[in-house]
Amino acid sequence: MAVPGAAALVLLLLGEAAAAAAAAGCGYQSCPATRPGLLNVHLVAHTHNDVGWLKTVEQYFYGARNELQHAGVQYILDSVVAQLAADPAKRFVYAEVAFLARWWRQQDEATRQLVRQLVDQGRLEFVLGGWCMNDEAAAHYGPVIEQLALGRRFLRRTFGGCARPRVAWQIDPFGHAREQAALFAQMGYDGLFVGRVDQQDKAARQRLRDMELLWRASGSLQPPAADLFTGILPDVYNPPSGFCWDQLCSDPPVVDGDSEENNVDTIVTTFLGIAADQAKQYRTNHIIMTMGSDFQYENANLWFKNMDKLIAHVNARQANGSRVHVLYSTPSCYLWELHRANLSWSLKTDDFFPYADGPHQFWTGYFTSRPAFKRYERLSNNFLQICNQLEAVTGPAAREGPYGSGDGSVLREAVAVAQHHDAVTGTEKQHVANDYAKQLAAGWEACQVLVANALASISGIKENFIFCNALNVSTCPLTEAAGHFIVILYNPLGRRVSWPVRLPVNGVSYAVTDPQGQPVPSEVVPVSRFTRRLRRDRGNATRELIFQASAPAVGFSTFTVSQLGRGDPHARLARPPVSLRAREIQNEHVRVLFDPLTGHLKEIQNLDKSISLPVFQSFYWYNASTGNEENPQASGAYIFRPNRSEPFPVSGSKQVPTYLVKNALVQEVYQNFSSWCSQVVRLYAGQPFVELEWTVGPIPVADGWGKEIISRFETTLQTNARFYTDSNGRQILERRRDYRPTWNLSQTEPVAGNYYPVNSRIYIKDKKFQLTVLTDRSQGGSSIIDGSLELMVHRRLLYDDARGVGEPLQESGADNKGLVVRGRHLVLLDTVESAADQHRPLAQQEFMAPYVVLAPGGGSSYRHGQPSLQQFSALRRELPPNVHLLTLAPWDPGTVLLRLEHQFEKGESANGSQPVTLDLLNLFSAFTITSLQEMNLAADQQRDAVTRLVWNLAEGPVRPQPAPKLDPKSVTLQPMEIRTFLATVQHAEPGAGPAGL
Amino acid sequence: MAVPGAAALVLLLLGEAAAAAAAAGCGYQSCPATRPGLLNVHLVAHTHNDVGWLKTVEQYFYGARNELQHAGVQYILDSVVAQLAADPAKRFVYAEVAFLARWWRQQDEATRQLVRQLVDQGRLEFVLGGWCMNDEAAAHYGPVIEQLALGRRFLRRTFGGCARPRVAWQIDPFGHAREQAALFAQMGYDGLFVGRVDQQDKAARQRLRDMELLWRASGSLQPPAADLFTGILPDVYNPPSGFCWDQLCSDPPVVDGDSEENNVDTIVTTFLGIAADQAKQYRTNHIIMTMGSDFQYENANLWFKNMDKLIAHVNARQANGSRVHVLYSTPSCYLWELHRANLSWSLKTDDFFPYADGPHQFWTGYFTSRPAFKRYERLSNNFLQICNQLEAVTGPAAREGPYGSGDGSVLREAVAVAQHHDAVTGTEKQHVANDYAKQLAAGWEACQVLVANALASISGIKENFIFCNALNVSTCPLTEAAGHFIVILYNPLGRRVSWPVRLPVNGVSYAVTDPQGQPVPSEVVPVSRFTRRLRRDRGNATRELIFQASAPAVGFSTFTVSQLGRGDPHARLARPPVSLRAREIQNEHVRVLFDPLTGHLKEIQNLDKSISLPVFQSFYWYNASTGNEENPQASGAYIFRPNRSEPFPVSGSKQVPTYLVKNALVQEVYQNFSSWCSQVVRLYAGQPFVELEWTVGPIPVADGWGKEIISRFETTLQTNARFYTDSNGRQILERRRDYRPTWNLSQTEPVAGNYYPVNSRIYIKDKKFQLTVLTDRSQGGSSIIDGSLELMVHRRLLYDDARGVGEPLQESGADNKGLVVRGRHLVLLDTVESAADQHRPLAQQEFMAPYVVLAPGGGSSYRHGQPSLQQFSALRRELPPNVHLLTLAPWDPGTVLLRLEHQFEKGESANGSQPVTLDLLNLFSAFTITSLQEMNLAADQQRDAVTRLVWNLAEGPVRPQPAPKLDPKSVTLQPMEIRTFLATVQHAEPGAGPAGL
Repeated sequence: MAVPGAAALVLLLLGEAAAAAAAAGCGYQSCPATRPGLLNVHLVAHTHNDVGWLKTVEQYFYGARNELQHAGVQYILDSVVAQLAADPAKRFVYAEVAFLARWWRQQDEATRQLVRQLVDQGRLEFVLGGWCMNDEAAAHYGPVIEQLALGRRFLRRTFGGCARPRVAWQIDPFGHAREQAALFAQMGYDGLFVGRVDQQDKAARQRLRDMELLWRASGSLQPPAADLFTGILPDVYNPPSGFCWDQLCSDPPVVDGDSEENNVDTIVTTFLGIAADQAKQYRTNHIIMTMGSDFQYENANLWFKNMDKLIAHVNARQANGSRVHVLYSTPSCYLWELHRANLSWSLKTDDFFPYADGPHQFWTGYFTSRPAFKRYERLSNNFLQICNQLEAVTGPAAREGPYGSGDGSVLREAVAVAQHHDAVTGTEKQHVANDYAKQLAAGWEACQVLVANALASISGIKENFIFCNALNVSTCPLTEAAGHFIVILYNPLGRRVSWPVRLPVNGVSYAVTDPQGQPVPSEVVPVSRFTRRLRRDRGNATRELIFQASAPAVGFSTFTVSQLGRGDPHARLARPPVSLRAREIQNEHVRVLFDPLTGHLKEIQNLDKSISLPVFQSFYWYNASTGNEENPQASGAYIFRPNRSEPFPVSGSKQVPTYLVKNALVQEVYQNFSSWCSQVVRLYAGQPFVELEWTVGPIPVADGWGKEIISRFETTLQTNARFYTDSNGRQILERRRDYRPTWNLSQTEPVAGNYYPVNSRIYIKDKKFQLTVLTDRSQGGSSIIDGSLELMVHRRLLYDDARGVGEPLQESGADNKGLVVRGRHLVLLDTVESAADQHRPLAQQEFMAPYVVLAPGGGSSYRHGQPSLQQFSALRRELPPNVHLLTLAPWDPGTVLLRLEHQFEKGESANGSQPVTLDLLNLFSAFTITSLQEMNLAADQQRDAVTRLVWNLAEGPVRPQPAPKLDPKSVTLQPMEIRTFLATVQHAEPGAGPAGL
Repeated sequence: MAVPGAAALVLLLLGEAAAAAAAAGCGYQSCPATRPGLLNVHLVAHTHNDVGWLKTVEQYFYGARNELQHAGVQYILDSVVAQLAADPAKRFVYAEVAFLARWWRQQDEATRQLVRQLVDQGRLEFVLGGWCMNDEAAAHYGPVIEQLALGRRFLRRTFGGCARPRVAWQIDPFGHAREQAALFAQMGYDGLFVGRVDQQDKAARQRLRDMELLWRASGSLQPPAADLFTGILPDVYNPPSGFCWDQLCSDPPVVDGDSEENNVDTIVTTFLGIAADQAKQYRTNHIIMTMGSDFQYENANLWFKNMDKLIAHVNARQANGSRVHVLYSTPSCYLWELHRANLSWSLKTDDFFPYADGPHQFWTGYFTSRPAFKRYERLSNNFLQICNQLEAVTGPAAREGPYGSGDGSVLREAVAVAQHHDAVTGTEKQHVANDYAKQLAAGWEACQVLVANALASISGIKENFIFCNALNVSTCPLTEAAGHFIVILYNPLGRRVSWPVRLPVNGVSYAVTDPQGQPVPSEVVPVSRFTRRLRRDRGNATRELIFQASAPAVGFSTFTVSQLGRGDPHARLARPPVSLRAREIQNEHVRVLFDPLTGHLKEIQNLDKSISLPVFQSFYWYNASTGNEENPQASGAYIFRPNRSEPFPVSGSKQVPTYLVKNALVQEVYQNFSSWCSQVVRLYAGQPFVELEWTVGPIPVADGWGKEIISRFETTLQTNARFYTDSNGRQILERRRDYRPTWNLSQTEPVAGNYYPVNSRIYIKDKKFQLTVLTDRSQGGSSIIDGSLELMVHRRLLYDDARGVGEPLQESGADNKGLVVRGRHLVLLDTVESAADQHRPLAQQEFMAPYVVLAPGGGSSYRHGQPSLQQFSALRRELPPNVHLLTLAPWDPGTVLLRLEHQFEKGESANGSQPVTLDLLNLFSAFTITSLQEMNLAADQQRDAVTRLVWNLAEGPVRPQPAPKLDPKSVTLQPMEIRTFLATVQHAEPGAGPAGL
C-alpha cells in the first residue's frame, strides 16, 4: 500500500482551483472581498523569524536549543503550508528568505508545487522578501540593497512574478531610516509597514489619525521616485491584547461549543471594542491587525482554528447590526484598500530616529553595541564586493581554478545575514554574535579561493597567495619572516586609489618596487606598544614596513618587497621616535597642533584653504544607568541610558602621555589616555585628512559600573544645536538637539535622546566651515554641546536592558577580560561648500577600501603562453568623480549585475552634484557587453515594467515619470540616483584582450 | 474558487489504499514488518492526556489556561490525524476517549471518514480505550468497569471492530491492582502495559529480565480467564533521555543536512547505545520505546519529522553492520511480536502496590488525599446505578416525563471522569477538584429529573419530588418545615434492604407508616453538636427523626411521615441523652464497651457467636515530613512521608469526653477527641456491625506542620505482621509488613512503605477471629503494629511533594479554614470462617446503598386510570445471597445491559463461595427479556467471539475453555465471576404488569 504524501494529494486536487486562480491573477487581483459599508478588519497571519538573536540561524531553523527560546522555523513553514493547503480562505505572509530558502532546499517536489500554487493564488504572500529584515540604523545602504536583492532574487527565480513583494515589512527594526525608505521605493515596493516608532510620535499620530502617510524619502530624487506610502502598525507586530492564539501564548482560546468554558460573547465583545478603538486612530474603514509574533505559527492550527471561530462569530454579529467585518487578509491587500480609499495623505521628509518606547527607553545604545562585529561586518562587505568584482570580471575561471572551488555565495549570504536587526545591531546573545562572525569567516575563506583563482587567471601567474587577515594588529607570518615577497593591492573603486600599505616585518630596511619595477619609497617604524598590547600572543613582528601604493580602478597593482641586508647601500636604520612630547604634525594639506602640556589635540589647519579651527579632542565615558528611582531602565545592548549627562574623562585630570613618530611617509602622535584607551593621530603624506586610530578596551568594570566610551571633538563653531548625520551611509540628515521635526518633543533623556545613528559620517558646521568625521563602522553620535560632536566607540554593560536578549552586553570573551576594539576616525576640515567633494569619495574609499593579497613570489605560469600581468584594470577608463561603482557582481552564467550611483546629493557640491552621463558599452575592458537591461534596484524586475501605486497628497497625485528609453552609450545619473543593469557579457580571452594597462 | 478541506482531499485519494487496507484486515494483521535477525525497536508515538489534573477537562480540551500548563487536546488530535493522513508509515496510539469523543463531535464528515480509515488501517490504534485512564488504588471495580465500557462503547459504535483496544495502557497510574488486571482480562485485552512499578521491583526485574510476565489476576477464576500478559515499560511512558522531540521538550532535533549543526552521528550512536542497554533488560529481540508524554503531539510534525530522520539514519547504519532496526509501531504490534517469540513467561499473582520511585517516595498518600471528594465519587456512582436501574426499568418514560428531560449520561460521564488517576486520587489542583465536583453535581441534577420521571411513571403519581443532598449534615428544607411528607426509599440491591432513615426535623414527635399503611416505630433525637458544627449556616433542624425502613430488591417503598401535635396520644417528648459517661452500648447482635475513664472504645462482643475481643480505638496524626537531611521529599498529595513513625494522639493525653444517646432504635456514644475530631459509635437495632461515624477537620496547621489523621484499632489478635486489604473493592489480598512477595524488600519507610489502598475493607485475623473494617470510600490503611489496623481518614499538608501538581494539599476552601470530613467505618467481629458472609453483602450495601427521595405528598395521577403504587420491585424474586446485581442499565433503545456477579471469592465462605445458577428469563418483572446475548465484560463484543492470545508458562500454554452455550434459564456464576448480558426487552405496560408487590 502506498499513499502519496499529503502535499502531493492536496496538489492533485488543487489542479482545477489553481487554474482558476491563475486566470484570476495574483497580486492585488487575488485580494479577498471586503464590505464597503462596514469597518473591515484585516487579520494578517504572520510570523516574525529573527535571522539569529537568542539562537543562531541554524538553531532557529531546526528548533535546536529550545531551552533558550522555543523556535523552529522548519516546523513553522511545514505547518503554515499544510494549513493553507487545507483551506483556501486562509492567508499567510512570510518575510525572511534566509529561512525560506533553507526550507525550500529540503522539500520534495510535491510540496514545492503546492507552495508555488499558494503563491500564485496570493494565499502565501511574501512581504519584504529580503534575505533578512535588516536593521536600519547600523546597516549601510550597500549591503542593505544586496540583502534585499538576494532574497527577492530567490523569490523571483523560485516562484516567478507572483512572489514579488509589494510591501516592505520592517515590523521589528528599532527605528527607520530615510535612505532605507528611498531604497524600498526604488525597488518597486508599493508601501512600507513599520512596527516601532517613538512613543511620543506614535501617540501624536494616533491622536491626529496620522498613522499612515506618504514618506518622501529623498531630497534629490524626482518625486515620486523615492516616495513611499508608510503605515505604522497598531501593536508593533503583535496581536491585540488577549488575542494571541499561538502555542507560545496563553490567551484563552475561543470556546464556542456547548462547553461550560464557552466564551464567545466575551471574546466578540472585546474584539469589537478593540476594533472600534483602533478605527479611531486610522483614516479609512479598513484596519489591520497583525496576528502573529516572534517565531509563532510553529503549530499554525492553533492560530487559524481560533481565528476561524473569531471571524465566524464576529461576522455573525452583523445580523444583530454590528458594522464590523473581519477577514483573512495580507498587508498588500490592506494596502490596496487604503489605496482604493483615494484619500490625500500627509507628507513626511525626516526619518524615524531615534526610537524610544518609554521616557527613559531610547534605543540608541545599539548604534554602537558590539563595535568589533560592526567593523567586521563592514570589512566583510568590502571583501565581498572585491570577490563579486573578481568573479564578474574573471568569469568561470574564478569559481573553478588551481586553488579549488571558489564560492562567493557563502560570504554573500553571511553578509546578508549580518544586516539582520539583531546582528549588526549587536543585540544578539554572545554565542549568536560568535556564530555570525564564524559565518563571515567561512565566507571569507570561500571567497579567498575565488580571489586566488581570479588573480591567477588575470595575472597569468599561480602564486602561493597568502591572505593576512590580522594586519590590523600587525600580524602576518609571511611578511614577518620572508626576506622577499610580493604585495598585490586590489582596488574595487572606479578610480585609481593611493593607499598606505603597512605590513608587519622584522627586518630593518626593505626595497619596494612598483608594477613597472620602479622603486617606491618605504619606511620601517617600530610596532607601537598599543598594537603589541592588542595582538597579545599573535605575531611577533617588531616593526612595520610602510609604503604608499596605488592601484588602478577595479584592478590591482603588484609590488615587490625585498629585505635589504645591513650592508646594502640603500639600507637605513629605523629611526627612533623624534620626541616624547608632541607639538604638531603636518603634511602638505593639513597641520594638527597639540597642547604640549596636556597632550590633547588642540587645533586643525587646512593648509590648502588656510582654515584654522581650534579642535579639542578627548575620550570620555558615560556612566551606564542601572536604573534609578524614576525608572528601573538600565543601559543595555539596545538602550543607552547614562546615569548623568556629563561624561567622565578617560584620562582623569592627568596629562595624556604622548610620543611622536615622524618620517617621510607618515607623522604620528601616540596618545595614551589610560591603560585601556589610546590613540594615534596620523597624517600620511599626501592625504588631506587626519586619521585618528583609537584603541579602546578592555573597558574596566571592576568598579561595578558599565561604561560607554565616546570620542568627543569640541570646536568653536557656532552650531546652534544642529549637527548632521548620514542615513544608511548615504543621504545626510540635519539633526537638532532636543527637537523633532514632526512633533513637539518633550525631551526626557538629554544625552541618549539626542543620539543618532552614524553609519559613515557626522559633521558640524557654521556658516563657513565644516568639521566632518568619517567612521569605519556604524556608531552612535551626537552633538550634546554646541560646537561639539561625539561618537560612541565602545560600550560594556553589566545589566540586561530587558528587551529580550537576556544578557548584559559584556563581551568579555574567553579570558573574561573584555574586548579591545580598534578603529579609525577620519577628520576633514573644509569650507561648507567644498566639504562634500572631500567626504563623499573618502567615505566610499573607506567602504570599498583596497585589499592586500600577499605571496612569496616565484609563482608558475597559469596558462601556457599567457603573459604575466603586474597591473590590471577591468575598466577602460576611470569613472567620473561623482559616480560610484556600487555593484559589479556575477549574476547568471554570462551575465553580470551592475549598479552605478551618483554619489552626491542635490546641491551639496557645485561640481559633484551635477548630472553625469556615461557610456556603459565602452566602459569595461574585462568583458564586452552584448546586451543591457535596466532593472529596478532589486534587479528582479525590468525597470520599464515597474508600476507602483500612485498616492495623493493634498496637492493631488504624484505621478511617476515614464522611464526613459535606455541608451547604453549614454546613461545619465542624477544626484543620488542608483541605476541597476543586467548585462550580458562576453569575457575577454585571458591575457589576450586589452586588459593590461 | 472552492477547494475542499484537506481531510476531504486526502480522503478521496486514500480510497484505493483504504480498499487495500480493508482487504489486509486490521488488528495484528496490519502490523508493520519487522526484521527477524535484528533487534527491532518499536517506536510508539503516543500522547498522555490526563482527563483533568492541573487544568480541568474542558481547559485541557480547548487549550485554555495554558499559563498553568501548555496543553490543548483538540489540537493534538487535529495534528496527529493530519500527520497520519500524510504518511502511511506513521502510526499513533490514543487512549482517553473522554477527549476523543469530545473532539469527534466537532469534526466534519470528511475528517470523520479519514479517521475511520486510519483506524481501519491500524495506523490510529486505540489503547486502553477507556473514558479515562483510571486510577487503580482508589477506584472501585464497579465504576472502573463502567468507565472502560463507556469508552469502548464509543469506539465500537463510532469505528466498529477495528477500533477495539487489544492492549490495556495504564502508563501513568501510581501502582497497579490485581482486580484491575482481572477486569482487563475479562474485557478481552491481550496485554497490559504499565509505567510505574516500585523502583526496587523494577531494578530487580531489569536485572532478571523479568520486565514482561504473565499476571494471574484472580485466585478464583479458572485460568486463563484472568491471566493477563503484562509489560513494564522502560521509561515510564517517556522517550529515552535526549529523544524528546515535542514542542514541550528541548532536546536537540535531528539535523541531517549540510548544516554545521549536523548531529546525525551523535544521535544515532546515542540511540544505538540506549537500545542495546534496554535490550539487556528484555527477553526478545523486540523492545518498545514510548515516544511521547503528557499532552505531547499538539504539533505532531515535530515528533514525526525527527523520528522519520531517526529511523532513516539508524537503519542506514545496517549497511555498516548495525543489528538494530527501528520502526513505527504500536503497543499491540509490539505485543504481537512478543507473542510470536513463543517464550515461557514468569507468573505473578500479587499486585503492584505500593509504588515508590525512591527510598522515601512512597506514593501512598493519595490513597487518602481529598477524602471528601473520594466519598462524593463513591456516592455519585451509587446514585448513577440507581439512575441506570430506573431508566432501564422504566424505559423511555424516564428520559422524557413530567419533570423534563432526564439524562443519565451527564452523571455517567462525570463518574467515569472521576475515576481518572488524577481525580479520585486527589492529586489534581484544587480548582480542578472543584470542577470534578461540579461536573458530578451537574450529573446528579440531570439524573434526578430522570429519577423523578421514573418514580412518577412507576408509582403512577406525579409527586413534587425533593432531593435532599445534604442529609449527611442534617439539612433538608422540606422535612425541617413540613408537618407531613412522604419518604421514598429506593433500593438498588438485588435483595430487600433494611435501612435506618434519619431526617432533620424540628418537630418533637412523628407518626411514620409503611407502604401498607402500617405504623413504623420512630424516634426523635437532638441534632448533635458535631453535626451542627459541620453544617455551619446550612439548615436549622434541631432534631433528627429516625425510623427503620426497608425496601424490596431493585425497587422502592413509600413511607408517610406526619408530625404529631403535642396533644396527640402518640406524641412523645424527645428524651435527653441518658448519660454523659458512656460505658457500653449494645443491640441484639453486638455489645461495645468503653473505658469509663478515658472514653475510648475498649471491647467489642459478637453476641451471636459469643466472641469478645479487646479493641482499643482512637485517632492519631502522623507529622508530615517537610523533607529532612536524608532526603528533601515532603509529604504531599501523592506521597505519604511521616517525619517519624509514631503518630501523635489527637486527644493528647487527656480523657475523651463522651455522652450517650440511647433509644429503641439506636444507641450512640459521642466521643469528642478534640475541637476538630469527634466520633459517634453507633448501634442501630438489628444491625450486626458497629458503625463509627467520624468527623475530622479542619485539621489545624497553624503550628506549621502538616498532619495526616488515622483511626487506629488495636486488638490482642496475633496477626504476625499480616493484614488484608481489598483490591478495587473486590478481591482480597494478604499484606505483610516490611515484605513484598516477589522481591527481597529493603524497607526504607517503616510506615508509608507499609500502606496499601483500602477501597472497601481491611481486616486482621488470627486463627479464629477476624476484625473487619469496611470503609465508605477509599483510604490508605495498614497494620503498623501486630494486632492493630489503621485507616488514614484525612490529611492536610503544607508542602507540595514535587510530583507535578504544584500545590500543597491544603483543601482550605473559601474560608481558608480547612475541610471537615465525615465518614463511617463499619466494624465487624466474627469468626474467620463466617467473616465473608458478613462483609461481602455489607460492602455491597455500602456501595449501592438505598437512596431517599422526599415529597410533600398529595401528587396527582400520572396516567389516567393508572393505580398508584406505594411499593415496587423490578425483580420477580430476590437474587441469591452470593449474587450481586452489578449493572442494570439502559443500552440501546429496547435493550438493557445486565451484569451479574458472584460476590464471593473461592473458598472464603462455605456457602457463599459455591457456584450459583439463575434463571435470567424469569428474573425481571419490569420487563420481558425477548433475547439475550452474553458479552465480554466491556459489553462491546459477544463473549463467544472473544479470542485472546495464548501465552506460555513454564508448564506450557494456558488455553482458554470454550465459552459454554448460553442458556438464559440457567446461568451459572462461579466465585468472583461477572457475567455481562445485553438483553432485548419489552417493558411492562405501566401499572398493568406484575410490577407491584
